[in-house]
Amino acid sequence: MQPSWKEVSLSDLPLREDLKSQHAYGAPQLDMPVCLNVNENPYPPSPSLVEHIATAVANAARQANRYPDRDFAELRSHLAAYLTHDTGVMVDASSIWAANGSNEVIQQIFQAFGGPGRSALAFTPAYPMYDEYCRTTFTHLHTLPRTGNFMLDLNQAIDSIREHQPSVVLLTSPNNPTGTALPVDDIRAILDIAPGVVVVDEAYAEFRRHGVRSAVTLLPDHPRLVVTRTLSKAFKFAGGCVGYCACASAIIEALKLVRLPYHLSVFTQAAACAALVARDEMLSQVEAIKAERDATVIWLRSQGLAVADSDANFVMFGKFADRHRVWSGLLRHGVLVREAGPPEYLRVSIGTAAEMDEFRTALLAVMASV
Amino acid sequence: MQPSWKEVSLSDLPLREDLKSQHAYGAPQLDMPVCLNVNENPYPPSPSLVEHIATAVANAARQANRYPDRDFAELRSHLAAYLTHDTGVMVDASSIWAANGSNEVIQQIFQAFGGPGRSALAFTPAYPMYDEYCRTTFTHLHTLPRTGNFMLDLNQAIDSIREHQPSVVLLTSPNNPTGTALPVDDIRAILDIAPGVVVVDEAYAEFRRHGVRSAVTLLPDHPRLVVTRTLSKAFKFAGGCVGYCACASAIIEALKLVRLPYHLSVFTQAAACAALVARDEMLSQVEAIKAERDATVIWLRSQGLAVADSDANFVMFGKFADRHRVWSGLLRHGVLVREAGPPEYLRVSIGTAAEMDEFRTALLAVMASV
Repeated sequence: MQPSWKEVSLSDLPLREDLKSQHAYGAPQLDMPVCLNVNENPYPPSPSLVEHIATAVANAARQANRYPDRDFAELRSHLAAYLTHDTGVMVDASSIWAANGSNEVIQQIFQAFGGPGRSALAFTPAYPMYDEYCRTTFTHLHTLPRTGNFMLDLNQAIDSIREHQPSVVLLTSPNNPTGTALPVDDIRAILDIAPGVVVVDEAYAEFRRHGVRSAVTLLPDHPRLVVTRTLSKAFKFAGGCVGYCACASAIIEALKLVRLPYHLSVFTQAAACAALVARDEMLSQVEAIKAERDATVIWLRSQGLAVADSDANFVMFGKFADRHRVWSGLLRHGVLVREAGPPEYLRVSIGTAAEMDEFRTALLAVMASV
Repeated sequence: MQPSWKEVSLSDLPLREDLKSQHAYGAPQLDMPVCLNVNENPYPPSPSLVEHIATAVANAARQANRYPDRDFAELRSHLAAYLTHDTGVMVDASSIWAANGSNEVIQQIFQAFGGPGRSALAFTPAYPMYDEYCRTTFTHLHTLPRTGNFMLDLNQAIDSIREHQPSVVLLTSPNNPTGTALPVDDIRAILDIAPGVVVVDEAYAEFRRHGVRSAVTLLPDHPRLVVTRTLSKAFKFAGGCVGYCACASAIIEALKLVRLPYHLSVFTQAAACAALVARDEMLSQVEAIKAERDATVIWLRSQGLAVADSDANFVMFGKFADRHRVWSGLLRHGVLVREAGPPEYLRVSIGTAAEMDEFRTALLAVMASV
């Protein structure tokens, strides 16, 4: 509150009607010893990589009085090279777009293809920001529940697409908060009938289990497909807030019509390029995280809990009659997890081995006490 | 174009109808010897400041695996301290909001307070992005022409506000592309009757002439006022793409409902904090730019040209029967200016003394040849 300024109440301002009952999105920002709530990679960059990032940023800062490259050609090249490396699909820089987080990328997709009188389709439980993209762009969101094991009911999905003709279909693979990856055959079946753009949100793709294919492999044959990714998860670069997508260049032309000019600062661009050059280091703990995840799934199941299969760096587990009580109990033990997914479930991000040890100890204590 | 990928035409995709005839906003990105087209500050940061920025970013990079502070408390404190210093008004961090450019700040204002069935009012000639904020948020934009000397016709403005009841009024002071500052009495008169939010876009405020007051001085008494600023102009920090605003905390609560979480990367936050700590250096050439601007106005008038009074770091001048021919002529001499403002005018950013010398020489040559 600003002292000595006249105040106004939000109810005296013309806030959009549908925002009046809303709260700002985001997990509680609590400073706890063990933070396993926002699916961060627990490993910081090495000192030498920190130095590379600082050098890249210093080079950029010498021209900080000038606007950045509005089309961020260098960053797009690095992202294309990485995606080619990760998936085996030849991806050109002209097929890449980026923004401040995949949130901004997907919001731009909605700004271009959504709007009043248009709709999108998503499958719940889903990333809660999907509601916000739709709300912000006045796009009606249809949702279909996932099946008992959090997969798609493909027949139901196809019927819904035929009925609603959504201009955007949102698929998430691996899905947040369940961790579930989709078979590319399901994605292909949806691409075959979707009238508009199909977004596959692959924020957690690098954590997928052996044999699970990325939707990037569908791009050469499916020009209405957009695959979004991020450097915030496997790349241990959440601080950089860089999301990106691969898609046909026609879709990128559409995104350029709605993006704000100079949306990516030179510092973000330079730091992200440095991180992508050092991709081997950035991704060096992914296998350890996957192993820890698989062990966590097994351990949670051994405690008699219901646990969704996970291709991500988190695990959704339950079922708790009062999940908030379990969440609070863990918090009292210094372990911060997330109340996410169906009401009986919690979601835990995969941290270091030591952090997961503290999580297990805390959960046992809490489960014994409730 | 991605080789060997199936292509799609944008006309086969459900692009929003009103985007179909549009082009991506932005000045041509041409690499010319003298770039005076996007109102950048021509002076780069000093080597020692570059080092401070690099150090700040390196510190941030050590935790790059973690998300940034979603509410960027440190950056808001620095911005508040600077604004207090610049205007003499005590501004608290709780009255500050920031985003990736004032473009994103103002778009968030429209996302919160605009929308279908709502309108905004702006005064032309104006910054062309105002059209885009409205288009993106489905807000109807009413415009009123400025007077012959690019001021407001206050009676007309008040009539229009009474008639249309816009939820957002956009004032620009100093105005882009004309350079004209508004008297705070005009702004106060509009605040007294506007039913919604009044945005005063002060991107160029630091260049205002002696005695011209900032709208920040109106904030303590006017809780519907939002004053937006940027680090991209006087602060020679266009590469950082940091815009911000000062306003009542109730308005910031509204912006939090529509902002994307983690929209400001740690690198942007850290670099901007370092720049604000070094504000004396960052702003050290502002007086030189103002003197060069005033000299440019006098010189252009001495050539018989029509020149708008300027409180900014650019000057709008004309009138040319074929401004594109003059623009192209200057380009052939290596000088890039902007086709902006009424159709007979060009806009030149104020560069270094040497750059302005090249501009004058080129303009004389071009005017002699057309």
